[in-house]
Amino acid sequence: MPVPVDDAAAGHAVANLLADYAACIDSDALEGWPDFFTDDCVYRITSAFNYARNLPIGIIHADSRRMLEDRVAALRKANIYEKQGYRHIISVPRIVLRKGAVVDAEAGFLVVRIMHDGVLDLFATGRYVDRIDFEAEKPRFAEKIVVLDSEKIDTLLAIPL
Amino acid sequence: MPVPVDDAAAGHAVANLLADYAACIDSDALEGWPDFFTDDCVYRITSAFNYARNLPIGIIHADSRRMLEDRVAALRKANIYEKQGYRHIISVPRIVLRKGAVVDAEAGFLVVRIMHDGVLDLFATGRYVDRIDFEAEKPRFAEKIVVLDSEKIDTLLAIPL
Amino acid sequence: MPVPVDDAAAGHAVANLLADYAACIDSDALEGWPDFFTDDCVYRITSAFNYARNLPIGIIHADSRRMLEDRVAALRKANIYEKQGYRHIISVPRIVLRKGAVVDAEAGFLVVRIMHDGVLDLFATGRYVDRIDFEAEKPRFAEKIVVLDSEKIDTLLAIPL
Repeated sequence: MPVPVDDAAAGHAVANLLADYAACIDSDALEGWPDFFTDDCVYRITSAFNYARNLPIGIIHADSRRMLEDRVAALRKANIYEKQGYRHIISVPRIVLRKGAVVDAEAGFLVVRIMHDGVLDLFATGRYVDRIDFEAEKPRFAEKIVVLDSEKIDTLLAIPL
Repeated sequence: MPVPVDDAAAGHAVANLLADYAACIDSDALEGWPDFFTDDCVYRITSAFNYARNLPIGIIHADSRRMLEDRVAALRKANIYEKQGYRHIISVPRIVLRKGAVVDAEAGFLVVRIMHDGVLDLFATGRYVDRIDFEAEKPRFAEKIVVLDSEKIDTLLAIPL
Repeated sequence: MPVPVDDAAAGHAVANLLADYAACIDSDALEGWPDFFTDDCVYRITSAFNYARNLPIGIIHADSRRMLEDRVAALRKANIYEKQGYRHIISVPRIVLRKGAVVDAEAGFLVVRIMHDGVLDLFATGRYVDRIDFEAEKPRFAEKIVVLDSEKIDTLLAIPL
């Protein structure tokens, strides 16, 4: 994919990437999830409180795609939790910075959880703070910080956000 | 409207169409709803479970715009249900295929129901699996499959999704 | 920022403006909120019921940026309410009219409230009816009517929507 030449092109490319990303998780195609990241990516889930204070303590912290693959494998193996689905609704992203092939973007999101009995509940809200690398054929997250609005995290949290 | 020449143009056109579609339903202008479809359209509401298994059993199945018009007429006539409103929030669509004047696209959505007493509840989530025809002056759905995440459907379901 | 020359450009610019607007409120950077409006702006929060009947009675009515600044100052001073956060999820906007440097646009939105104890609740849904002025360096709202779907408004309502 060509490097975006202006903010409009970047906005379009990032919105598409986020839509693909959400579709991957929401369709439970988790084996494809690590492929959205660069080899030496950073993936982190943290809270707004900790993020604002620059506290390194995150709910999840991975610093390579390999760790994400391990995570998916563990999830598939364990699979002890109640079957549940997710639906990500992602806002239009804001382009924060463009520098060569790298784009920094942020987007608000909301995740609904679909329980086995069909009940829908508001699972999480927050924003993605993303650094996206357009160098390769397909854009990939070099960094994805999932900043959750709430401190209160469901202990079942295991699925990628 | 011109046939989109690339994915960016298609993405823009489809996002607009979905925004118009949602606004039509959410403003209760249902008489205009069938006009978003081609004459021999397919409109179907089904669940992710049934859709994945290719089960033809849907919650609603219509195979012409005429059937959609009948549906609206019936809704207006019956009108026995408690007055309620809807709010669709639709994610940025993914362009799945472009072939001539036809665009296949998917978009996640969330519908909030506003009850007569003002209470908001999370009514439905899912994705649209759409085939859009750009041949005519205005783009129209040749096919719209509403794939609901949950099996549990409110029996009051009558409003288009 | 250049005046949008077509609906695609307008759609992109408005979507970005709304994303920035939401990020400002959701990150509690309220001091920057009035800067999204023109000097002699109209900002109004009303319900769909009142809006459809053209009733001037709104929940909030301001007719200058100065009033918005006063509002933020009052909010910061009072600050007696329970600490809470917000998350706006805004749909793709519809461009209703373009006339010179002025763009009329509408967008559905949903606001989740994050209470101090971390509980998420569906706070409000509705649509923005916006008139945006692209004359100056940065696009600004000349008019922003927040049309809420529900009549039932939380009495704590104080934060900009």
